[in-house]
Amino acid sequence: MTPPKTPDAPPARLSLISRHLGPVYPINTPYAVERLPNTVDISLLPRIQVRQLTTTTPKMSQPAHPTLLIPGPIEFDDAVLQSMSHFSESHVSAGFVATFGETLSMLRKLFQTTDPAVQPFVLSGSGTLGWDLVAANLIEAGEDVLVLGTGYFSDGFADCLRVYGANVTELKAPVGTKPTLPEIEKALSEKKYKAITVTHVDTSTGVLSELKNLSALVHKVSPDTLIIVDGVCSVACEEIDFDAWGLDGVVTASQKAIGCPAGLSISMFSGRAMKAFENRKTPPSAYFASMKNWTPIMKNYEAKKPSYFATPSPQLVHALHTALSQILAKPVTERFAGHKAASDKIKAAIGALGLKQVAANPDEQAHGMTAIYLPEGVKGAELLPILAKKGVVFAGGIHKEIVTKYIRFGHMGVSVLDPTRGDIERAVKALEEGLAELGYTKP
Amino acid sequence: MTPPKTPDAPPARLSLISRHLGPVYPINTPYAVERLPNTVDISLLPRIQVRQLTTTTPKMSQPAHPTLLIPGPIEFDDAVLQSMSHFSESHVSAGFVATFGETLSMLRKLFQTTDPAVQPFVLSGSGTLGWDLVAANLIEAGEDVLVLGTGYFSDGFADCLRVYGANVTELKAPVGTKPTLPEIEKALSEKKYKAITVTHVDTSTGVLSELKNLSALVHKVSPDTLIIVDGVCSVACEEIDFDAWGLDGVVTASQKAIGCPAGLSISMFSGRAMKAFENRKTPPSAYFASMKNWTPIMKNYEAKKPSYFATPSPQLVHALHTALSQILAKPVTERFAGHKAASDKIKAAIGALGLKQVAANPDEQAHGMTAIYLPEGVKGAELLPILAKKGVVFAGGIHKEIVTKYIRFGHMGVSVLDPTRGDIERAVKALEEGLAELGYTKP
Repeated sequence: MTPPKTPDAPPARLSLISRHLGPVYPINTPYAVERLPNTVDISLLPRIQVRQLTTTTPKMSQPAHPTLLIPGPIEFDDAVLQSMSHFSESHVSAGFVATFGETLSMLRKLFQTTDPAVQPFVLSGSGTLGWDLVAANLIEAGEDVLVLGTGYFSDGFADCLRVYGANVTELKAPVGTKPTLPEIEKALSEKKYKAITVTHVDTSTGVLSELKNLSALVHKVSPDTLIIVDGVCSVACEEIDFDAWGLDGVVTASQKAIGCPAGLSISMFSGRAMKAFENRKTPPSAYFASMKNWTPIMKNYEAKKPSYFATPSPQLVHALHTALSQILAKPVTERFAGHKAASDKIKAAIGALGLKQVAANPDEQAHGMTAIYLPEGVKGAELLPILAKKGVVFAGGIHKEIVTKYIRFGHMGVSVLDPTRGDIERAVKALEEGLAELGYTKP
Repeated sequence: MTPPKTPDAPPARLSLISRHLGPVYPINTPYAVERLPNTVDISLLPRIQVRQLTTTTPKMSQPAHPTLLIPGPIEFDDAVLQSMSHFSESHVSAGFVATFGETLSMLRKLFQTTDPAVQPFVLSGSGTLGWDLVAANLIEAGEDVLVLGTGYFSDGFADCLRVYGANVTELKAPVGTKPTLPEIEKALSEKKYKAITVTHVDTSTGVLSELKNLSALVHKVSPDTLIIVDGVCSVACEEIDFDAWGLDGVVTASQKAIGCPAGLSISMFSGRAMKAFENRKTPPSAYFASMKNWTPIMKNYEAKKPSYFATPSPQLVHALHTALSQILAKPVTERFAGHKAASDKIKAAIGALGLKQVAANPDEQAHGMTAIYLPEGVKGAELLPILAKKGVVFAGGIHKEIVTKYIRFGHMGVSVLDPTRGDIERAVKALEEGLAELGYTKP
């Protein structure tokens, strides 16, 4: 739809203006350009210098605190935390619009997608909101969804899908494993599914699901089925090649391997997923989590046009911008390799201590966390406080079948990629000493 | 339900431990205590000193930036922004649980409620998420809701209610006014409504709705109808006496008069509203915005018990804690009076400039913002950039019927309560000079 030509209609070059070309303050009008006639003539606006926040912000000193090595939130870089304190800005100011737009474009690089039909979303909310985004927009009531069951978080995704009326089939694997390709092929051959969901890393067990072959299988045996990935504990530490693997949706959160404080739901959807949304017979079944409300806003922000549906958090978006700038300063493949190398070292150390992992099969072990079975006679309620006293915070169990029997060690972001911190070495040493204090001796 | 007595069961005094009594690190287990057996024996845990962040954090210097005087986000206090940079903490650590719990308890004071049946919620999300919370939990598909129509934001609330299946009747008032009590009484007598919604301050027009007499009327003529207030642009600048006025729900956002960066949906529901939720015949129609998922978590946090449904944002919650600590350092009535005094001064200055307000009737004028009609021949697209150049950011129009004809001046929080800033005086002076530069002369 071409907006009506009025004396106030904005010239097309509005979209060309970026913070780097000289920040401007356009009319501070929170409106969705889809909803109201355009009223801003950007050519009338003055150019004003505002302070540029960059990733080279001088290091702040974080106060001394125990090192957080749970599977998210993780330890944050100084510059990222500094960005959280950004002075107040309008959510429709040119400076912030440019920051948000660049953030969305950087996400495409992190997900290794160049397909312009692919759509990123950044919403205020917990990572869980991503499940609502999928369930309320891509699935209609009564449609069938196959959920690959790997633990607590795949169960949660299934619950969410059911709330919005999906007919969910859960293909559950025993604790510490994932459904196999032949099992998945069999399930797909028995029913036509609108979507299949896979939890890339189930944070409750540390089980890693393989996406490339899974996606190839789905495309082969059930080509119309959307492939939806819960990437909450995988994006930015496990390889995700969105276009090449033919994924349709990946939902994640800011506070894990991306390394930005919690509060943002981050997702990426394929052109095919967006088409499935557009072809719905019924309206989306949520309002705040509605793609109908957010898609034009995300497109506008990325085109550097002010736009409004609900107020985003400028401070969190600045922090995400800083985190992504840091991530993309190096090839993402190096980042994945760095997490794998750290994980291999950690898992070798865990093995050397005589401890077993919940994910027993090395091919099914996540690279950003390790779920570790406690030795016979050692209680998490005793061990974790000892570790905390040594300055290292691990997480307890969460999978209901084994909740008291294991602990979780998160190793993502600066804690593994900045070798000067020594976080991982201290954590492994603390674990060894803590177990010894509780009377455990290596076998 | 009494949890099974196991060797790991937690003693009742878990709930008594607060940060002030000496921080501890309990097992870092993100689980909802309602879902899984308790496994933490707090008596085993060591007491560890962690750094206390208080509201007396030394002043940071915010970089020079234009003063943000839009109807939210507002200018933030240094200590609040400082809290946004809090080092990473587990969302289930004793320190953060205490901070979150205190935040919820402080909200009760801000809303002037002491009724233990009243339930506060703080969720990651935009203010808009509060509409989903109401629509997906308090209303069932097909139930009737009366929406008092005051502008863009009451229209939005009506849209949201419809998405979740409510049968909405909008009682619309002409732009710049609100429905009258006799009109509302007539509407309530024609149909039995599950709820009535009122936008306390419609940010699109600056129209203030009166709650005390409205609530009394509803209680008299339709006592079963829930009274739901959109307080996004009113909480912490307009008086709200939750218990005394018999309100059933108030939803708001962090970035307006509360003075905390955007990213939190904040709400308060009466015991009657919570009963209405519990008595639903159908399950809640959203997942992330489900009271079923969040109510036990909010109760646990306030009881200082670790608990998990979805990861909150520790940094935003710290900032809200700081903002509420500052607000409650003085009687809230003083805060409301301070906003009223500043608003009276601003409205007198606007009048002296010969300008008219969108809300013409003084009884219907908000105290945290002013919507100002532009003089004949002056365009917002010309005036707002001039103001920005003078260091003052106002907002453009948003109400579709008058979008190009007015501007909006937000006056909430530190900009009006800290006289040393001089924000308001500078804004009024900039407005006067800017209009003069565009050839406007006072009548």
